Amino acid sequence: MSRDSVPSAPRAPRPLENFRFSHRIRVRWAEVDPQGIVFNPNYLMYFDVAVTEYWRAIGCPYPGAFLAQGADAYLIKATLEYKAPARFDDELDVFMHVSRIGRSSMTVLGAVCRENEQLVSAELIYVFASTTDRKSTSVPGSIRRAVLAYEGLSVETT
Amino acid sequence: MSRDSVPSAPRAPRPLENFRFSHRIRVRWAEVDPQGIVFNPNYLMYFDVAVTEYWRAIGCPYPGAFLAQGADAYLIKATLEYKAPARFDDELDVFMHVSRIGRSSMTVLGAVCRENEQLVSAELIYVFASTTDRKSTSVPGSIRRAVLAYEGLSVETT
Amino acid sequence: MSRDSVPSAPRAPRPLENFRFSHRIRVRWAEVDPQGIVFNPNYLMYFDVAVTEYWRAIGCPYPGAFLAQGADAYLIKATLEYKAPARFDDELDVFMHVSRIGRSSMTVLGAVCRENEQLVSAELIYVFASTTDRKSTSVPGSIRRAVLAYEGLSVETT
Amino acid sequence: MSRDSVPSAPRAPRPLENFRFSHRIRVRWAEVDPQGIVFNPNYLMYFDVAVTEYWRAIGCPYPGAFLAQGADAYLIKATLEYKAPARFDDELDVFMHVSRIGRSSMTVLGAVCRENEQLVSAELIYVFASTTDRKSTSVPGSIRRAVLAYEGLSVETT
Repeated sequence: MSRDSVPSAPRAPRPLENFRFSHRIRVRWAEVDPQGIVFNPNYLMYFDVAVTEYWRAIGCPYPGAFLAQGADAYLIKATLEYKAPARFDDELDVFMHVSRIGRSSMTVLGAVCRENEQLVSAELIYVFASTTDRKSTSVPGSIRRAVLAYEGLSVETT
Repeated sequence: MSRDSVPSAPRAPRPLENFRFSHRIRVRWAEVDPQGIVFNPNYLMYFDVAVTEYWRAIGCPYPGAFLAQGADAYLIKATLEYKAPARFDDELDVFMHVSRIGRSSMTVLGAVCRENEQLVSAELIYVFASTTDRKSTSVPGSIRRAVLAYEGLSVETT
Repeated sequence: MSRDSVPSAPRAPRPLENFRFSHRIRVRWAEVDPQGIVFNPNYLMYFDVAVTEYWRAIGCPYPGAFLAQGADAYLIKATLEYKAPARFDDELDVFMHVSRIGRSSMTVLGAVCRENEQLVSAELIYVFASTTDRKSTSVPGSIRRAVLAYEGLSVETT
Repeated sequence: MSRDSVPSAPRAPRPLENFRFSHRIRVRWAEVDPQGIVFNPNYLMYFDVAVTEYWRAIGCPYPGAFLAQGADAYLIKATLEYKAPARFDDELDVFMHVSRIGRSSMTVLGAVCRENEQLVSAELIYVFASTTDRKSTSVPGSIRRAVLAYEGLSVETT
């Protein structure tokens, strides 16, 4: 039987010291382009996978814990920097970290690493909106508290 | 301005004479693998695109015309034969043809061609199911009539 | 840190007793369609991932062990039966089994299961071709032997 | 027969007046997520498709015209703003415009519009690198001249 697991937790490269969370992904054939490197939109998909795992890790599984509060999170801005390419079969650690949580929005910093090398970095800004009228809404209290606790953010820094 | 249009209708290769419908697609970078050829699952996606265009062409746009009848179509079997590979930027004609329409199911034959060469052939079997309880249901009358008229199928052959 | 691992090996549903190999995959948001179910081409991609893991498991990592022999494997026929849909975040076990290995071709049987329920079954036929002239070629001896040993196939059944 | 063509050229929304180029795309089922909206990484793929069509439109078809000069273009930074979602079957116009061309890099501005509404905007920065050693290299002269001519950029503004 085959598993995607790894023998030990990846250590974050130095600049990622405050990234408590990471999720390991192995690059699939479908994700690699004719240049032999991961096609650039797929990193946004990798971050989406990691964000889902982050919600699970902090006890707010997506989408259940969100929809139960009548809210969903929508990406409104993404900034990606591509430093070096990943290749087929590479094992990548997708690090992420909520750096700011406001009234209705949230900023996530992300990094895709292969061993000690950072390949891609990202800043993703999400806004929470009501599932009924799609208008922006407060971050649900249960989600806010779980993020603050996990990240060790004080209420002031939000 | 750029368009995906072509100056003249593609002529079907000889064995596809009874394929009245085709839809042109240009191969995207995202769809090509490190071997330099279209990654095999993408042909199923191409057929899905062509089926959507087929529904539009016969006057039953998907999903509106289906959901209005309380039914949706689900793929239950797909058989694909890969004869030759498509490559980046190729213009492909996706031919399709409903060869059989039963009480609750429908068989679609498909072919992906590049000029006169047939690259992939497919047989796709769909079953109609109720959108409320997901149980199999009759092909809605309006859809059945539109297919029979377009394909010139007699009621007996169904 | 998050891992895709599972606490214990999945047990194959009864009809899959002779599937020695499986690979676990968690359904990603990107793979789910507006009907809330995995879009049908993605199962072919799941099988591709599992085939890659199979080659690793039997000691012939793809593509290295293939290209070193001057051969690559190309899918020439795929037959899929869709019995029940997978949904977002489902943990799926992709079982696979080489059921026949001929002079230049190989038949793989596959099954996607969620716990004890089989959702999709597949038969995939690959042919080996030379990487230089793309003409069909014998299955390299090292790959043939590794498959026969892993599957417990006798030389006669090939 | 079905074509992706449109009866008349899309007119750019007011803020896009200097976008001379656009490419029309119809949203595919595969690109829509369970929320019923285009999954966010797919816009980067749409821009990639439009960039390919841009190269064709200005007479430098990708990748031929690039590889012939021993250079390829790699995305090094992408910034996307998501203003409103696209949905299944929407016809989208992907506008793009080279706003700056430096010694070895190039900045592309992009916008995805549905009729007069701008849904997504993007800034994409590409760097040219040698296909032999992957080191950054000058934008090939033929490509530089074609871009400057098409965009009406003076040599000074580059």
